[in-house]
Order: sequence, then C-alpha cells, then structure tokens
Amino acid sequence: MTDFFNGIPTIAYEGPEAAHDFAFRHYDPDAVIMGKPMKDHLRFACAYWHSFAWPGGDPFGGPTFVRPWFDDTMDAAKMKADVALEMFQILGVPYFCFHDADVRPEGASFSESIDNLAQITDYFAEKMDQSGVKLLWGTANLFSHRRYMAGAATNPDPDVFAYAAATIKACMDATIKLGGENYVLWGGREGYETLLNTDMGRERQQAGRMLQMVVDYKHKMGFEGTILIEPKPQEPTKHQYDYDVATVYGFLKDFGLEDEVKVNIEQGHAILAGHSFEHELALARELGIFGSIDMNRNDYQSGWDTDQFPNNVPEMALAYYEVLRAGGFTTGGTNFDAKLRRQSLDPEDLIIAHVGGMDACAAGLKAAAAMFEDGKLEAARDARYAGWNTAAGQDLLHRSSLEDCYAKVTEQAIEPEPRSGRQERLENLVNRYL
Amino acid sequence: MTDFFNGIPTIAYEGPEAAHDFAFRHYDPDAVIMGKPMKDHLRFACAYWHSFAWPGGDPFGGPTFVRPWFDDTMDAAKMKADVALEMFQILGVPYFCFHDADVRPEGASFSESIDNLAQITDYFAEKMDQSGVKLLWGTANLFSHRRYMAGAATNPDPDVFAYAAATIKACMDATIKLGGENYVLWGGREGYETLLNTDMGRERQQAGRMLQMVVDYKHKMGFEGTILIEPKPQEPTKHQYDYDVATVYGFLKDFGLEDEVKVNIEQGHAILAGHSFEHELALARELGIFGSIDMNRNDYQSGWDTDQFPNNVPEMALAYYEVLRAGGFTTGGTNFDAKLRRQSLDPEDLIIAHVGGMDACAAGLKAAAAMFEDGKLEAARDARYAGWNTAAGQDLLHRSSLEDCYAKVTEQAIEPEPRSGRQERLENLVNRYL
Amino acid sequence: MTDFFNGIPTIAYEGPEAAHDFAFRHYDPDAVIMGKPMKDHLRFACAYWHSFAWPGGDPFGGPTFVRPWFDDTMDAAKMKADVALEMFQILGVPYFCFHDADVRPEGASFSESIDNLAQITDYFAEKMDQSGVKLLWGTANLFSHRRYMAGAATNPDPDVFAYAAATIKACMDATIKLGGENYVLWGGREGYETLLNTDMGRERQQAGRMLQMVVDYKHKMGFEGTILIEPKPQEPTKHQYDYDVATVYGFLKDFGLEDEVKVNIEQGHAILAGHSFEHELALARELGIFGSIDMNRNDYQSGWDTDQFPNNVPEMALAYYEVLRAGGFTTGGTNFDAKLRRQSLDPEDLIIAHVGGMDACAAGLKAAAAMFEDGKLEAARDARYAGWNTAAGQDLLHRSSLEDCYAKVTEQAIEPEPRSGRQERLENLVNRYL
Amino acid sequence: MTDFFNGIPTIAYEGPEAAHDFAFRHYDPDAVIMGKPMKDHLRFACAYWHSFAWPGGDPFGGPTFVRPWFDDTMDAAKMKADVALEMFQILGVPYFCFHDADVRPEGASFSESIDNLAQITDYFAEKMDQSGVKLLWGTANLFSHRRYMAGAATNPDPDVFAYAAATIKACMDATIKLGGENYVLWGGREGYETLLNTDMGRERQQAGRMLQMVVDYKHKMGFEGTILIEPKPQEPTKHQYDYDVATVYGFLKDFGLEDEVKVNIEQGHAILAGHSFEHELALARELGIFGSIDMNRNDYQSGWDTDQFPNNVPEMALAYYEVLRAGGFTTGGTNFDAKLRRQSLDPEDLIIAHVGGMDACAAGLKAAAAMFEDGKLEAARDARYAGWNTAAGQDLLHRSSLEDCYAKVTEQAIEPEPRSGRQERLENLVNRYL
Repeated sequence: MTDFFNGIPTIAYEGPEAAHDFAFRHYDPDAVIMGKPMKDHLRFACAYWHSFAWPGGDPFGGPTFVRPWFDDTMDAAKMKADVALEMFQILGVPYFCFHDADVRPEGASFSESIDNLAQITDYFAEKMDQSGVKLLWGTANLFSHRRYMAGAATNPDPDVFAYAAATIKACMDATIKLGGENYVLWGGREGYETLLNTDMGRERQQAGRMLQMVVDYKHKMGFEGTILIEPKPQEPTKHQYDYDVATVYGFLKDFGLEDEVKVNIEQGHAILAGHSFEHELALARELGIFGSIDMNRNDYQSGWDTDQFPNNVPEMALAYYEVLRAGGFTTGGTNFDAKLRRQSLDPEDLIIAHVGGMDACAAGLKAAAAMFEDGKLEAARDARYAGWNTAAGQDLLHRSSLEDCYAKVTEQAIEPEPRSGRQERLENLVNRYL
Repeated sequence: MTDFFNGIPTIAYEGPEAAHDFAFRHYDPDAVIMGKPMKDHLRFACAYWHSFAWPGGDPFGGPTFVRPWFDDTMDAAKMKADVALEMFQILGVPYFCFHDADVRPEGASFSESIDNLAQITDYFAEKMDQSGVKLLWGTANLFSHRRYMAGAATNPDPDVFAYAAATIKACMDATIKLGGENYVLWGGREGYETLLNTDMGRERQQAGRMLQMVVDYKHKMGFEGTILIEPKPQEPTKHQYDYDVATVYGFLKDFGLEDEVKVNIEQGHAILAGHSFEHELALARELGIFGSIDMNRNDYQSGWDTDQFPNNVPEMALAYYEVLRAGGFTTGGTNFDAKLRRQSLDPEDLIIAHVGGMDACAAGLKAAAAMFEDGKLEAARDARYAGWNTAAGQDLLHRSSLEDCYAKVTEQAIEPEPRSGRQERLENLVNRYL
Repeated sequence: MTDFFNGIPTIAYEGPEAAHDFAFRHYDPDAVIMGKPMKDHLRFACAYWHSFAWPGGDPFGGPTFVRPWFDDTMDAAKMKADVALEMFQILGVPYFCFHDADVRPEGASFSESIDNLAQITDYFAEKMDQSGVKLLWGTANLFSHRRYMAGAATNPDPDVFAYAAATIKACMDATIKLGGENYVLWGGREGYETLLNTDMGRERQQAGRMLQMVVDYKHKMGFEGTILIEPKPQEPTKHQYDYDVATVYGFLKDFGLEDEVKVNIEQGHAILAGHSFEHELALARELGIFGSIDMNRNDYQSGWDTDQFPNNVPEMALAYYEVLRAGGFTTGGTNFDAKLRRQSLDPEDLIIAHVGGMDACAAGLKAAAAMFEDGKLEAARDARYAGWNTAAGQDLLHRSSLEDCYAKVTEQAIEPEPRSGRQERLENLVNRYL
Repeated sequence: MTDFFNGIPTIAYEGPEAAHDFAFRHYDPDAVIMGKPMKDHLRFACAYWHSFAWPGGDPFGGPTFVRPWFDDTMDAAKMKADVALEMFQILGVPYFCFHDADVRPEGASFSESIDNLAQITDYFAEKMDQSGVKLLWGTANLFSHRRYMAGAATNPDPDVFAYAAATIKACMDATIKLGGENYVLWGGREGYETLLNTDMGRERQQAGRMLQMVVDYKHKMGFEGTILIEPKPQEPTKHQYDYDVATVYGFLKDFGLEDEVKVNIEQGHAILAGHSFEHELALARELGIFGSIDMNRNDYQSGWDTDQFPNNVPEMALAYYEVLRAGGFTTGGTNFDAKLRRQSLDPEDLIIAHVGGMDACAAGLKAAAAMFEDGKLEAARDARYAGWNTAAGQDLLHRSSLEDCYAKVTEQAIEPEPRSGRQERLENLVNRYL
C-alpha cells in the first residue's frame, strides 16, 4: 500500500442519511434493481488519464497538482499504478480505462514506448489479478504528441498514419492481454484547423481505411470486445470528423461498418455538439450503435470540454432511462471521463469526487428504473402513435404513394385536428420518480 | 405595372465607383468568368416568402410592414405576384422560389387550397412566360399551420402524414407545371420539442418513407429536376432531424437514397449547427450530395435564424470557392433566403437589400474564381498530401493491415517529423484575391 | 364561473405520493419553513401574457391555441379575466402580473387604449377584491406594436419617447390602483439591430432620463412598491442595453439611481447572457439591487428565449439558496414567466404546467432552507476566507499600498501555498439536501 | 544577430500587387491618412507571450514548437529577447507588450524572480535604445502559477493578495523604467470556478482595493501612462469579474475610478462575451473609457479564446471606424494578442502571420478613414435623430415628466409613424469603402 490515500476508508453504502463525506448514499452495489445488481447495471469505470496523469494545467495556467509519481520513469509509472488500483478498491469501482500514454513513460523511440507499455501492462495484469479490478476499455493516445498535430489516421503524412496504426495495434494487444471488454477510438486530431489546407475527401478515406484495419485486426485476434468510436464536435481541432452520433453513423454506413462498430457517448461532447446527452443516447439506440458512455458534465455556460463530475440527478435519470430502453449495457459501462477542478488539490478530493459522481448515477438509475417499471411514460408515448398501429396506418407507412395520399385526403376530406403533446404533464411525471 | 416600386430604376452594372444606391458595383450578369457568364455561375433567385409574405413580426412584436396585398384573397395574391415579378425584373434576377402558402390564399379545406394554388400558378405561368423569369425550386409549407405542430411526415397522427403527402404532390405538380429546376424539402417541424413524447425510431421510418414516395413520384412524373433536402439543426423545434449535411447523408444512406437526393445548404443553418458555411459546402461536395444554396447571413452573436442579406465578401469568396471546386451549380443556384430587417419598411429597402446581396456574392465569386484559376491554393493543398500519391502511400491506403504498419514502423524506425501547416500563409494568400 | 377549466379540481397539497396530475407534491402553502409559511417565501405569481394572451405562434408557425377570448373586444377581455382569475384560484396562486396589452383591447388611438385599460382594471379590481388575488407587478408593453420597432425610451423619434412615457404613466396608475407591489420595466426594444444607424450615447441618455421620470413619478404618487428593471441580453434586438445584472448596475450608478431601482431577474435571460441563474441572483444581492425573479427555464441547447416551466429541482435549490442569502423577497416574488409549449393545447395543460413549476420551486426552496439552516455550506465558505478577518488581513484590505505589500512579501519571504477549493465536496454536500 | 529568421527580409510596403509572402500590400507606415501617418493611427505592437513564450500546447496536446530559447535560464531569456527584437525590426513594428513571466526565468523565490526581471529589463532597455522599439504596455502574469489558481487580488488567502500586489509593483516599475505608455491588468483568475466556495462580495472589495492601490502608485511614481483593464467573460475561470466593457464600467463607478482607468478591448474576448468587437469599442467610447485594443480574431464556431491573427478586412474596417470616432488612440495602440496556430512551426510563419494581420488592419483603417471623411454614414445617423435636436426634443429630454408626456400625447393626439431604419442601405454603403 502507498500512503497517498492515508486515512481514507473504503467507501460503503450507508444510505441517504450518512453524515460524512466518505459514504455512498445511493450506490448500493449489490442491491437488485430490475432483476440485476446495481453494479451490473452501472458497470462503473475510472479514467486513468484524468485522475492520475493530468497535472491540473489549463490554457492559462501550469500544473497545480503535486503528485509523487509525476516523473517520466518506470518506477513512477508503477507508483501511479499502485495508487490507481488503491483508488479503485477504495471506491469499489470494478473497471478502469486507459490510454497507452497515461500508463507508461514515453520512450525515446517507438520501440522503447512499446517496451514500456509491455512492462507496465504486465504490472497491471498482476495487480488486476490480485484485486479483481477489470479493464473496461483500452485506447491509444493519438493526439498529445506533436507528431499527431495534423491528425493520426487523417494526417497528410503517410508515415504518421503508419505510426498511428502501429500504435493502435500495440494498444489493442495490451487491451486483449488485460482482458479489456472494449477498444475505443477517440479521434482528437482527426479533423482540421482550417479548410484551406485540408483535403476532406482524402482524410475521410484514410479514416475509413484505418477503421477497417482495426476491425480486421479485432477479428484476426479473436477479440470479442466491442470497437467503439467516441464522437466529439471540436476541441482541440476547429472541426472533428466524428462530430456526433448521427455523423458517425453516416461514416459507418459509408464504409459498411455499421454492424462492426458502436459509439461511446460522452455527456460533455453531446453538449458541445448542441445536443442533450439523452438525445445522443436515444439516437444511438435507434440506429443500433449504442455501446458505452463517458460520464461527466459540461458546464452549460462554457464553450469547451469541462469534464466535470456529474451531479445533477434529474439529468442522470434521463440518461439511464435511455440506457435501460436500449436494454442496458452489454460490453459497455459508465466510465467517469471526469477530472477534478484544478483547485481540488487533495487526495481526498479524488475520492470524494468519484463518490459524488457514483451516487448521482446511482440515484439517476434508481429513478430511471422506477419510471421504466412503472410504464406510464412508455404508455403515454405509445398512445400518441397508436394510429400508426392500425392496418390503415401500416398500409400508409409501407405501401402508399403520394397519389394514394392525395386521393385519400380529397376523397375523405381529411382535415387533421391537432392533439396536445402534453409535454409539461410528462415532465411532471418524470419528476415524480426523483 | 403596379406602383409599388414607383421611381426605382432597373438596376444595371455601373462598376465600383457608382455613386448611388441603385446600381450594381460588382454583379455584371454577362461578364464572363472562367468561360461562363456571371449570371450562369450565380443563378440568383429571390425567395417569395421573405420578400412578399412576411409581415415583419418577431417573437416579441407584431407586423411592421404595411403592404397593399396583405389580404387573404385571390386578388391580393395576384397583386403580390405582380409586385414580385416587377422586383425580379428590376433586379434582373432570373429565378425565384416559393412555398404554396406564400402564393395562394389558404382555403377553407384542402381542396380549396389546391384550387387556389392551381389558379395562382396559372397566373404565374403567364407572367413567367412574358418576363422570362424562371422557377429555381418549389416547395410545400409543412410547418406554419397548426395541423403540422407535431410534424408533417413525422407526425404521430397518420392523417397528418397523408395530408402532408397530398400537399407535396400538389406542390411537385405546381413545380413541374412552372418548369421548376428543383424541388426542396425543409422539415421545419420534422424533429421534436421533447424526447419524452417522441418515438424517434418510428419518426425516422416515417421520414424515410415520405422521401421514398417523393423520389418515386419524381420518376413517375419524369421530373428531371433535383430533389433537395435543406438541413437545419433546430428552430422552430428543439431538435430537427435534418440537423446538418453529415446527418442528412447518414439518413440518405440508411434509406438508400444518396444517389437520388442532394442538399440545399443555407449559410444561417450551417452557423446554427456549429459549422462554417464553407464546411457544409465542402462536406456536401465530398459526399457527392451538393445541390444548391440558400444564401443569407446569420448574426454571429444571435442564437436563432436571423436570415440577413449577405454582405461579407471574404466569406462569400470562401463559399463560392467551394462551389467552384464542386464544378459549379447544375440545377441549383443562389437563392436569397434573406429577409429585410423589420425596421426596413420602404419598398426601396427591398431592392437595395437584394442589390447589396447580389453584389456581395458577385464580388465573392470573382475573388473565388481568381483564386481557383491561379491555382496556388490547390497547389499548396496537393503538396501537403503528396506522400499519399506515391506507390508506398497508395499501398498503405489500400492494402495495409495494422501488423504491416507495425512492422514498417519498427523495421524502418519511423519517427515522423511534423511539418508546418502554414495556415496564416494560406489565409494571407486568400486575402490577396479580395 | 366560465367552463374553461371544467372538471379540474382546486389543487391541494397531497404529498409526494399523490397518484394523479392535479395535486401538489411539494408545495404546501402554509407549511412553515425557517419561521415563515412557504407561500410567503415563494410569493408565486402567474404571468397574464403567456397563459392568456399568447396564441401559440413561433417564428415558423401561426397560432395553435384556440381560446374563446381570442377577440379584440372588451367582452373578450372580460372573459379572459374571468378565466385568469379562475386559474389563479384553482392553483392557489396569490399574485399575478400583467402588461397593459395583455388585458385590454388595443384602441384606435392612445386615448381609447387608455380608456380600455381603465375599464378592464376596474373589472380586475372588483374580481381581485372578491378573490383575494393580488398584483405582484404591472408593466407596459413597449415592444409589440410597430411604433416601438426602433425603441421606446431609446427611439430616434422623440414622439415615441413621449408616447412611451405617457403609456408608462397609465400603467403605473393602473398598478397603483390595483395595489401592485412593484412596477417592472423590460426594455425589449431598448437596444439596436445594427450599430450603423444607432447613436448609443444619445440612446443611453434617453434611457436614463426615462428611468428618472419613472422614479420621480413613483415618489410623487407616493407609490411604495419597487421599481424593477428586467435585464436581458438580446432578442428581439441584436443587443439590448439592459444586458445583465452587472450592466444594469453600471447604468444605475451612472444615473445615480442605484438606491431607487432594483432588478427582476429571469432564469432564461441569465442563460442567454452566458450566466447561471444563481450567478445573477448572487451578484444582484452583493450589489444591493436584488428585487424579484421571473421563474422559468431556458433550454440549454437553444439560443433563444424558450420560457419553459422550471422542472429541475437541483437548479431551483441553488436559486432559492441565493434568495435566502439575500434575506428573502420583500416586495418581490416568484413570477412564472413561462409559457406552455405550443403543442400543449388543452386547458388542463395550463394547470398542470403551473403545478409542476410550483412544485419544483417548493422542492428547491425546501432543500435551500435545509442547507441554509444547517449552515455547513456557509461555514465552509467563511473558513476559506478566514485569513481576511484577522487584523493583518483587514489592514491589508483597507490600508495597504503596493509598496507595503512589496516590503511584506520580501521581508517575510512569503511564498503562498495553495489550498484545495474542495468544489466536488461542496457539490456533494449540496446534493445531500435534495 | 541570431540566425532564427535567417533569409527573411525586412518587410516593406510593395502595394497590393506584390507577388510574394514578405511584403506589405496595405500597410504603408508613412502614408498619411486623415492628416496622420498610418503608423501613428495604428500604433502596432507585438505580444511577447504568444510569439516567444508559448510552446504550442493545447488542452489535448503538448508543445509543438521547438525554439532554441525554450530553457529557463537567463541566457535563454536573452536569446529570446534578441530574436524578439529582430522580429520587431523585420516587421517595422514600433511597440511590444510583455508580462514579467514572458521575459524572465521564474526564480526560486519572489526576490529571485524580481532580480531576474531587473536583469532582463536592463537588457531590454539597451536593445530598445539601439533599435528604437518602444513599450506599449507592461503587465504582470497573475494567472499561470499555481499560487494564483484561486485568484490574485480576489484570492481567499491575503498572502496571495500581497504577493500579487508586490508583483504588480515590480511590473509597474519595469514598465516605467522601459518608458511604457500604459500598464494593463488582465484578471485571468479574478473570477470563480464555483459559486459554492466563493464570496463575491469580499472578492469584489479586494479587487477594488487592488485597483485603488495601482492608481495610487501610478500617481506617486508620476507615471503618465494609462491604467487599463482588459475585460474577458470567462476562461480560464467559469466566470471572470471583468466580464465585458459594461461590467468593468459598473465596477469602476462603484469604486470611483472611472476617470482613472480605461479598457483594453480584445476582439476575441468581445466575441466570447456575446458582443461584436465594434460594440465593445463603441460602448467604451460612449462611456469615456476607451483605451487600447488587443487585436486578434476568435473563431466564430469555437467557444474558447482562439487568439488568431485578424484577417477579415470588413470587420477591421468597422473596428477602426469606432476607433476613429473615439478620436483615435492616445496612449493606446493595436497589440496583436494573437498566436500562430500550433501547426505553424516555422520561423517564417511568425513573420507571415504578423504581415497578414498588419495588412488586414491597414486595409481596414483605410476603409474606415474613407468612410469617416466621406461623412455619409454619420450624416445618415444624425438625420435619424434630428428630432431630438429641436427645442421640443431637448425640452423633452431634459425637463419633462411622465405627466407632461401624457398631456402632450393626449392633447396632440400623437400616434407616431415608424420610419425605415435602412439597415441594408447602410450595410451596402459600408461595403462601398472596402
């Protein structure tokens, strides 16, 4: 044991009345909801990068966090892993997620970085085995290093494409080695700063090819996890190709990969794209590409990716309601892609932030499940569309032409009378479960 | 002749030094650019709705315009048509666009509305024949009437779907009768106010079906124009299904209609969706669905659809540059989907606004053409991607696997060195043509 | 009694488990919180304009509501008043608010409009007397009519200024006659569409003068209510002079009116100005100009004024917490400046929407009061600034110079060590009260 | 001479037809406009931080620039100064601006940092003397170091306040030593991340006190330059106290400093605050606090501070038109608070970016001056308000009461008729000068 979290107890469920900071008030891992323990609904994961690799800088300020492992050596990487695993156990979080760059020292060459990754993942394997903590997903950091400044798959330089592909292979191998349940692609530099120097047509082909290679490799290796794309509209680039769920879907259709790849949806990215989180979740479900979620919160008054811990339970309830409507997670889960505010310097802040986030999700899930089981919301929705379930409705949907419709409207002198959408009633209904 | 534009002369090209309001300074219709008269590059059209049907209201205020034709009779409709045609001739605009609701009185029943549309389009046919003014596109207003408050194609009530389909048939018939070169679908109500009462899966199927019926009818009628969808992210709805070009593409792919339908891209809608106008144009070109443009301008500090006349020439240049890269318009054109500010009460304001907009487009086109013919920008873009044109680059793109890339990077010890993206140099270069 | 709300019962508190739509789950008017009945904390008011005068139109659609009083006659105005008062009684809302244009038919001349206002306010007086319903505030609609298209106080035409002043006098008289507790000024047209035709210096002087006249008249008439300005950043204008609380404060200081005028803060306007609602409330409190609130909700993904009913309890809690920190309302209250979605056609939707909004506010107030009484949040805040309470801190704040500080830092070799801001801990703490 | 800009010539005016990258097309420093050389209108300055201290990082990526002076030693600081002065001379830029942290190595203690600053400013003094380059303004970096994470003047810890004050003293001394013409305060951390831990009232008092101390010190030292506050709405904080020009004005009024302090307005900050740049300039002029400008450009589709070089000439024209209306700069100037895109790696990119920015400003200034001298825009503006210049208008503005207005409107039966605002005509007019 390191002494980083000295004095902080393992967090347990103590119910809503718990009087201190180190207790769950809503998350009761083994409590059964809709026939399944809460932990299996939520499938929580911690993000290695924010909690252990990010030093607290922002565009106008340097590091604020002082961590004993902030050093680019293998020993420091191992200390970091020790602390990380301790946090996962303190929190009782069953999963974590990582990029290669989070966990290993950057090598002086590609090969050295790969070696470093192999060493540290061996170390992880051992610790995971001991602790029971599992890997929700792995991914490659193809955006921080200056070699990727103009893109990874979509770089104008084929050497960068090759370098990125080689890196992905190594990260997929690491993910497989550690029993990861998904592999994620976030294309932080797959976009452009200016159209003036960009060939979107070429870059799109490059991105499609890279994704095909990833899918091919998955099958070749017999990896049974899910390949996930994480949409984001912009930042760091002015425009990112994986803008939102609808855009990713068009891209997948174009390359015939819509049955091979799903999406990892982040709350903050949804907000930056002009959507509610529940919209993106619902759309992914309807398109058959719902995979996993990156749970966080974007400040509604900020125009950049704030990656805060979630805390608004009514919003969580709407999100998990869409997850339940999708049948719940299969390989996916709830990854906290959330970071401490840079003024939250203390080790206990790391624990407290996750406790609050987990509780907000748990409270949201409970409300969502109650709403789902009660069925009133779905009954209201179904009633609204009941006309389409009739023979005439089905005929209209599947077999009509414009002329048929014209004939019907004129012959039957149809003048439709609108009916109330009852939005406020439904909003009140949702509030009853909270 | 009506006396509405009394005293306003026909607008002619007088060159940049013209000292009065009623002259073109840049738009010289027959001047040849890149082998084609300017008028055939730009293919200007006026929007009937904004200039002749909109009374100047806004969410906090009633009508400001006082027009002699603001009356719901056939006589008023004809006076409106007279004034409209006069404006097109004063401006020398070769095309116009309309919705059914702009041109005919609303009838007491569907059949009466259809009769009214037939009468007024007969009147139009005659005036168009005399004047030589043509129809760029027709469309159906499926959003203003309360029957469409919950959607047209995507309404929960099948009767509304049928009513909308019948209306589209009538508007396509009118478009064909008047020799229209395109037919446009803007789904102002095809979206939702709240997810809580919405079945996105159903609504998506309904929208796909309606579009298929439109395409089928086009072919049945031998209409050779283009079917165009106009993307917009929101407003009036919270979310509109045709969010942006990328979203429309995914929808078309899903229903197998990507070769049948193109997009009509509006500047203001691009801005509301978080994109630059040139982004949407470039993307549509790369996806093979570029059709036509709705030219206007959205105030950058306003979060709603301001539909102002364009006036920033550097922005126009970037837009027409993408049009030129797409090979120019075929059936499409430049429709001014722009309205006077509601304080611009006078008849001359209508003329002046269009003159300014046409001049901004013309100046932009000239700069774009100079840039295109000069070739420096494309040369710089091509040079940036030159590595992909080699045999090795092509092999990488078409035949590589992750393992191949891994082997190549490790064996050749590839460590890519980034090269300057030269954005500021290219921005300066663009400014040279302005 | 009219039959508009036929079959809808008077709403009573039935507790969180109530199983139907027509009950309060949280709002228990006479329940005592922090020594005061809930109704006296919240001081609810209904907005006449949204609920009774707005026909359901939006920028792309006409009226959706069909109300028997939608006719510009005095009889219709009285029927509207009857229905309104019935709604206030069904809901048990103690106050309402109105503009002149909401309640009386527009006359053919100024004098006729004034006469109409006098008649209908007589009618109101009688009904208010019978029912016990009171007036929270009155105001003049100086934005809907075309005469105000270029501003009221800030119009380039002095006649409009005079007309606006005369109208304000009449509305202040009506407010006084009906025992109103405040008088509100919302300058919907006091701004500009384009700087090009605007003399901001002049318009600012005109606005200052008008406000001075209002204050003078208040004192002359012995009106003991509060004069309130309602900030909004834009819409309908591109820029509105009363942008936000900070801007209004600067304006008041400039004209020496900071002790005479306070602010009426609207949730949706705060959001449009780029602020959280609680920010605007806290700032107004610190500046000594907190007056009243317009409670509603702005969709976070829409860039215009959506005026929805509030329903997010955690947000309400933060808002009422700031109200409690300000000492609660004096003459102000909670006015629902919220409107039904235009698809919510039914009379019951009006009732249900208010019930939900009132309950959200009540639940928020209860959480805020618990947090306030518990004192943990304030204790944490105070502790953070404790250093400033020492003699040295006070000396530094009140008597130091740059040189003193320089001497102190160098002599004492001060190198400040940052302390955790504990944001996540405080967010979790807030969630405990919800 | 260093060899950093090897091979890059001194930039000279060569006119619009210049065929290469290293020439001014519009900026002709000694050309006389409105009786004054262009260089004295524009008073260009380079920002030390962006061009010489920023390594090209962003929130998702590390450094991209490789500069020989990126080392925290005094020798490196001197090499940086050598290169900087070379750039100023290549560009013929008469001024520069700096923060302490840009120019000197960070010391191990406050005193060591101060010593380093003294040494490097001595070095600057000598080089400025030789080259004739002058200091437009100096400032203190009170935001990058972790000690300022919770504010400088507004920190909860009085020691940080003292430390900031001591630092400001040192930077004011340095500014005075180098003959700086202004001293700037940008409060990047003077705001909050969460209201929950913030005492806005206290922090406001602290900020007011600090500003008073700065003004006192200015007078004590006989500094004749201008103290400037630079507004920004947010980023890095969620909310910054110096939100925009109107907010700063209210703050100055509150502390009685409106005659002592002016504003330095940045284009990008205006955009982030929801304003056009010309709005902020015009407002500052009307409030009597216009000082200087930070010229750059914010991407209209990005929600953070993009600090790009300006390149849209029509926008520059509107900005400089407001500067001309303010009587031009006195101590202020045009500081390029703009940075290369992080992919623009080459030394020539630094030069080219400034050349383009200077040319855009010069072209804008020329258009603005032509518009100003022509007088048509001001004539139209004045005509619009002519009614206020009559005796009746002046009487209304200065001596009327609500009752007077009421009497006048009723007695004279005033029904104002709106007049066209002619916005499109004025927009066209502006385009004639471009």
